[in-house]
Amino acid sequence: MTDFDPQDPDYETRVRASFKRQRVMETIGAELMKIAPGEVEIALPFRADLTQQNGYLHAGIVAAIVDSACGYAAMSLTPAGGEVLSIEFKLNLLSPAAGESFVARGRVKRAGRNVTVCTGDLFALYGDGAEKLVATMLATMMNVRERA
Amino acid sequence: MTDFDPQDPDYETRVRASFKRQRVMETIGAELMKIAPGEVEIALPFRADLTQQNGYLHAGIVAAIVDSACGYAAMSLTPAGGEVLSIEFKLNLLSPAAGESFVARGRVKRAGRNVTVCTGDLFALYGDGAEKLVATMLATMMNVRERA
Amino acid sequence: MTDFDPQDPDYETRVRASFKRQRVMETIGAELMKIAPGEVEIALPFRADLTQQNGYLHAGIVAAIVDSACGYAAMSLTPAGGEVLSIEFKLNLLSPAAGESFVARGRVKRAGRNVTVCTGDLFALYGDGAEKLVATMLATMMNVRERA
Amino acid sequence: MTDFDPQDPDYETRVRASFKRQRVMETIGAELMKIAPGEVEIALPFRADLTQQNGYLHAGIVAAIVDSACGYAAMSLTPAGGEVLSIEFKLNLLSPAAGESFVARGRVKRAGRNVTVCTGDLFALYGDGAEKLVATMLATMMNVRERA
Repeated sequence: MTDFDPQDPDYETRVRASFKRQRVMETIGAELMKIAPGEVEIALPFRADLTQQNGYLHAGIVAAIVDSACGYAAMSLTPAGGEVLSIEFKLNLLSPAAGESFVARGRVKRAGRNVTVCTGDLFALYGDGAEKLVATMLATMMNVRERA
Repeated sequence: MTDFDPQDPDYETRVRASFKRQRVMETIGAELMKIAPGEVEIALPFRADLTQQNGYLHAGIVAAIVDSACGYAAMSLTPAGGEVLSIEFKLNLLSPAAGESFVARGRVKRAGRNVTVCTGDLFALYGDGAEKLVATMLATMMNVRERA
Repeated sequence: MTDFDPQDPDYETRVRASFKRQRVMETIGAELMKIAPGEVEIALPFRADLTQQNGYLHAGIVAAIVDSACGYAAMSLTPAGGEVLSIEFKLNLLSPAAGESFVARGRVKRAGRNVTVCTGDLFALYGDGAEKLVATMLATMMNVRERA
Repeated sequence: MTDFDPQDPDYETRVRASFKRQRVMETIGAELMKIAPGEVEIALPFRADLTQQNGYLHAGIVAAIVDSACGYAAMSLTPAGGEVLSIEFKLNLLSPAAGESFVARGRVKRAGRNVTVCTGDLFALYGDGAEKLVATMLATMMNVRERA
C-alpha cells in the first residue's frame, strides 16, 4: 500500500505496455517488477557487458533503470492516456555498483498537474539476501497527454 | 587547443586504455573520438534497441555517453596513473534524442586537486551536417589514485 | 533515535558552534532546532523581506536553510574536529514557499569517509499545526579536517 | 549581442519590474546589472552578515543571485506578460566565495515553450579587476502566464 490514489484504475496495464516499448530495457536485461500507485521497481541482473572500467555497472545503466523506475512511478498516477517524459534528473553514485543483481525503486515525492518529482534508489542484491544502497536519484518528470 | 595544460603528456593513451575497459561502450556502439586537455568527444550511432517508448534514445544511454565524456575530460588533466570516478551528475533532457547519430562533448569547468567539475552536451547529428543540442549535463568527478 | 552512530560524542556542541558562526543564519532569522546523529532541523519564521516576486520565500533562502540542515546532518557524523563543505546540491521547488514559518530537515543518506550524501526537505508550517512539503534537496558534502 | 531574439520588445522593463518585487534582493544588497535577450547579470557586494562558518558567502546566498540571474535570463525571452518560476536547480560550489564583490551571470541554454533551461556562473571580483569563477548552476525554469 502506498499513500497515493491512482486516477486511472488500469494504471498497471498502461505502465507495463509503455515499459515493453522501451526497447533498451530488453537490451540490457531489465525487468519490470512491482507496480503500485506512485511506486515502481525494476530489476537488472549483473552483466559484464554493461560495466565501466573497474567492472562495476556503468553510471549510465544505473541512470537508465532508476530513471525508468521514477518515470513509471510518476505515470502510475496520471490520468488514463497520460504519459511521462523526463525533464531532468540528478544521480548520486554512493558505492561501486557491484552485486549479483540490482533493483531500482522509484517513488513519487510530489505529484503535480504538469510536473511530478520522484526519488529513486538503486540497491545491489547479494546471494545471501543482503542488499546495499549504491545510488540515489532526484528526478523531475513532465506529465503529457497521450501521443498519437 | 584548450585552456588546460595536461600534467601527464601521455594523457591520451591513458584515456583510451580506460575507455577500452568500459565494456558498456562497446555494447552500445559508442566510440571515443577527440581527446584534448580537458575535452573529450564520444560518438554514438542511433540504434533502435537503445530507445525509450517513443523511439528516442533512452535518457540512460544519453547519460552513459555524456558521463563518460565528462569523466574522460577530467581524467585528461590528472597526473599519470590517475583515475576518475563519477560522484554525481545532473542531466537535462532538452529535446527528443532523435537523429542519425549523436556526439557527446565533455569539458572540464574547474579542475581541482580532489574534485573536478565538468559540463557535457549531447548533440544529435543529421545527414545534412546539421546538429541539434538535445541534452546537457553538470557533473562532479572525484580524482583517485590508480587502482591495483 | 536515528540509524547512525556518532563518532564524536560531542557532535551537538560542535554543530551548534559552527551554526553560530554562520552569520547569514542570524541575518535571515534561522534557528537551529533538533540535532540527532545524521539529522538536523532548522526553523525559519516567514519574513516579507526574504521573498521573491510573488511574496513567497525566495528559492535562495530555501536553499540556505536546507543546505545548512544537510551540512550539519553530515557534520554530526564526522570525527571530533571535522568540518563539512558543500560540494553541490540540487533543489526542487515543489510548491510556493508560503506559510507562517518553515522547517528544514536534513538527513544523511550515506556517510562516506570523504563524501557524505544528504537529503533535505523544507516544510511550511501553518497556525493550525498543518505542515506542507514545499521543497526537496539532494546534496553532496565533503568531509574536511578542522581549519586553523 | 546574444543569440536570442526576444518576443517582447519591452523585456527589459518587465524584468526590472519583477526584480524590484523580489524583496530579498534588496535585503541582501543585490543589484540588477546587464539585461540582454537570454542573459542577465546580478551584482552583489560582499557582506559579512551573509557568510557561512568560514567567512565566505553562504551557498544559499550564492544560489539566490545565480537562480535569479537564470530566471530573469529565461524571462527576457518570454512573451509580454510572461513570468518564470524555478522548477529546480543544481549548484556546484567550485571555490570559496571570497571576494570584494560578486557577479552572477545567467544564460539561457534552451528556451522551450513551457520549460527553459539555463546555466549560471558566479564570479568573485577583486579590486585589481581580476575575477574568479566560484560557483556554477544548471537550472530548469517553468514559463507561466501572468498572475493576477
